[in-house]
Amino acid sequence: AEESAETPTIFSAEMKATALELKDTAMEAGLAYELDESLSTEVGPRRVGTPGDRLGIKWAVAKMKALGFDKVWTEEVTHVYWERGEIEAEVTGPYPQRMTAIALGGSVGTPKKGIEAEVVEFENFAALEAAPEGSLKGKIAYVSYRMERKIDGSGYGPAVIARGYGALTAEQKGAVGYIMRSVGTDNNRLAHTGGQREDKGVAGIPAAALSNPDADILSNMIRRGQPVTFKLKQSSKRHDKKVVKTANVIGEVTGRETPEDYVILGSHLDSWDVGTGAVDDGIGVTITMAAAKHILDLPQRPKRSIRVVLFGAEEVGLVGVKQYLEKNRAELDHHVIGAEWDFGVGRIYDMKPGVGPQALNAIREMAELFAPMGVSLNAANDAKGDSDLSLLGEAGMPAVEFAPDGSLYFDYHHTDNDTFDKVDPEAMKFNTAIYTMFTWLAAESGVDFRK
Amino acid sequence: AEESAETPTIFSAEMKATALELKDTAMEAGLAYELDESLSTEVGPRRVGTPGDRLGIKWAVAKMKALGFDKVWTEEVTHVYWERGEIEAEVTGPYPQRMTAIALGGSVGTPKKGIEAEVVEFENFAALEAAPEGSLKGKIAYVSYRMERKIDGSGYGPAVIARGYGALTAEQKGAVGYIMRSVGTDNNRLAHTGGQREDKGVAGIPAAALSNPDADILSNMIRRGQPVTFKLKQSSKRHDKKVVKTANVIGEVTGRETPEDYVILGSHLDSWDVGTGAVDDGIGVTITMAAAKHILDLPQRPKRSIRVVLFGAEEVGLVGVKQYLEKNRAELDHHVIGAEWDFGVGRIYDMKPGVGPQALNAIREMAELFAPMGVSLNAANDAKGDSDLSLLGEAGMPAVEFAPDGSLYFDYHHTDNDTFDKVDPEAMKFNTAIYTMFTWLAAESGVDFRK
Ligand SMILES: [Zn+2]
Ligand SMILES: [Zn+2]
Ligand SMILES: [Zn+2]
Ligand SMILES: [Zn+2]
Repeated sequence: AEESAETPTIFSAEMKATALELKDTAMEAGLAYELDESLSTEVGPRRVGTPGDRLGIKWAVAKMKALGFDKVWTEEVTHVYWERGEIEAEVTGPYPQRMTAIALGGSVGTPKKGIEAEVVEFENFAALEAAPEGSLKGKIAYVSYRMERKIDGSGYGPAVIARGYGALTAEQKGAVGYIMRSVGTDNNRLAHTGGQREDKGVAGIPAAALSNPDADILSNMIRRGQPVTFKLKQSSKRHDKKVVKTANVIGEVTGRETPEDYVILGSHLDSWDVGTGAVDDGIGVTITMAAAKHILDLPQRPKRSIRVVLFGAEEVGLVGVKQYLEKNRAELDHHVIGAEWDFGVGRIYDMKPGVGPQALNAIREMAELFAPMGVSLNAANDAKGDSDLSLLGEAGMPAVEFAPDGSLYFDYHHTDNDTFDKVDPEAMKFNTAIYTMFTWLAAESGVDFRK
Repeated sequence: AEESAETPTIFSAEMKATALELKDTAMEAGLAYELDESLSTEVGPRRVGTPGDRLGIKWAVAKMKALGFDKVWTEEVTHVYWERGEIEAEVTGPYPQRMTAIALGGSVGTPKKGIEAEVVEFENFAALEAAPEGSLKGKIAYVSYRMERKIDGSGYGPAVIARGYGALTAEQKGAVGYIMRSVGTDNNRLAHTGGQREDKGVAGIPAAALSNPDADILSNMIRRGQPVTFKLKQSSKRHDKKVVKTANVIGEVTGRETPEDYVILGSHLDSWDVGTGAVDDGIGVTITMAAAKHILDLPQRPKRSIRVVLFGAEEVGLVGVKQYLEKNRAELDHHVIGAEWDFGVGRIYDMKPGVGPQALNAIREMAELFAPMGVSLNAANDAKGDSDLSLLGEAGMPAVEFAPDGSLYFDYHHTDNDTFDKVDPEAMKFNTAIYTMFTWLAAESGVDFRK
């Protein structure tokens, strides 16, 4: 009689109790932090096609096996090679100064002796786009837009467009080179690299980012009114015909009842070559591995399988997940729900689902468990999943987006500063706890998140 | 009758009123900030013997003239040249990783192909000193002591000894190279340079500092127990017979009554070659210039003269002030009192005098004007003056040390990050106000600060 008085729930009291035990386990273990220390110390940077990338794959396979995953395998991913080379940047007049710069991913190089030209400054990408055709003939175009710091990282979009299409646009107006203020919120003299978009064509002029302090110096010079000349020497090189092999690394916790259905935890194993990728996306790699490990340590496997997928070649345009999707399209319906971590060092403060209307009841019950941890349930229900998983989300896979405080993320993003000392051990425990609870509830339940 | 009831004061009510007017002027003007923007944009880094150093001298002379100083001149300073060259550092085994390093000032280079050896870690300089003779034969010594962050910069002393004498000591034990954790409180992947002490001899092995994140990585590797090998390629070079010329730049506000007596405002014009020296010591250069300018703008000159001395070659061992002292020793008694700024971006919170017992009354009256600004009067009376001025203080010149909050100073100190964006315009106004008030009261009064 007492029992029937309670509202029926999706997740049983026993399941919730186990979820809370898993929370305690994660909060005590600190496993993700430990794994990330290992990855960033023993492997370091993992840009696609480099020895570090291959070493990272070995590390991940060995570590997943050591953690006791039921199955561990790799799925080959191919891409073309890009060579960063060296870079030298300087203002040559009227106030000669060395500048800290970094090549944008995919950039061509300059001639060996470099290019030297007058700089034309634009306050943002739209202003560059509005420049008349031919108006940049023989010049170096410079977009000085400064990214805004926001908790949800929403300053990134308005800033990153200048990285994506800046060089291509500048070239169309006649420019011989393209420089931009780094897409970053810090004031460190470390420039931020990152990919250029190639869906509208490949820029044939060299492209580089200046650190924020250097952009300040350059803009201060330009403001004085005299022509400012800039020299860029960059030996980066596209090797569009040189195929390099990398991989998606997959570790499975095999479900005890419907092993053919799986909850997906995503992250990317590749990184840029600057920094050690401890943050982007070492944190995602190790939080998801740790979450699975805590579930592996339960007395029995959950009903459904869990797949921890460490995608390859994310930084160069979600290449790994695209090839995953091609290979696994037939199984897409068995991707029950997914969540990816690719957003740095902060603590989760919000959970946004992207599920069927009926499945929202299950999400609400999960959210009740997270609420005491300070995690809100987003009113929207349009999540597709972060980064790699967004492509699976768009292809129909239900997803949850756990939003961490991203205020600091773009201080380190794609710079030399992406190192393990930036990783907060307490936030790692907290975020691992949430991923573990979510994953276990989704894998143990029979909820159809598509409905 | 009413007037005689008041305690007689050292500084008249009128003088104090003028001091408060000067405060308002400085707080409104923002002149130091403007000057520092000019110095760091139009000149940039100013390491002794480099073109930037010569340009800085030109800039300072021209700017002092433009500001209307009554006299502006330079006094030649000579030093020997040191070439930084290039540096490449990497761990070669068991976990190969590129390291961010910077040569310590005065370091010799490695052979062209570099040196490669096992690293031996010491937790601090004392531990290195305690290593048995010959025990480091063929090794690279590594001191991993981490500087502590303190408001008064007192973490610097215990850390900097490893920079001063580390290489020399390591060499004595047989080491072939010396590396150390940067003397810095930040977590940026920018290593901190700085001079080595040469009073006990010149180290014959190459010496470099790793950034804090790199030192973390290296120590994490070493902790694993396997031998860690390190490769250092460094083309720095001592040119001990190549004399370079620099200068102390002096600007005078000529006193209307006893022009042969002067209040000294010190700072140093040279900087390291990394960063733009906007902080170290562009802030000192421009605060002292601005303080004098505000006094120049009064209806009449103060009784005594004011000398703004921008010392040269400070970073390489207080060379400029040593030569100033030689040249001006006969006039030492006419240095009424002095104050130097060489401690970064914070606000002044304490004033410590170093004056005769009777003159403490004047200091107390000054302190009463600063008290509402949150500046305490230090109970000690042993100030010698900061940096350059400390040598004049030791030679008998009275001094005041204004202590700013130094919590952030060693985040940027001697790194690429010493750029103008770190300079806080409000703190610049505040500190300039205090320097202006102090300087004017000392120059307008007849107080003998030696008594
Ligand atoms: Zn990422
Ligand atoms: Zn990334
Ligand atoms: Zn200094
Ligand atoms: Zn210095």
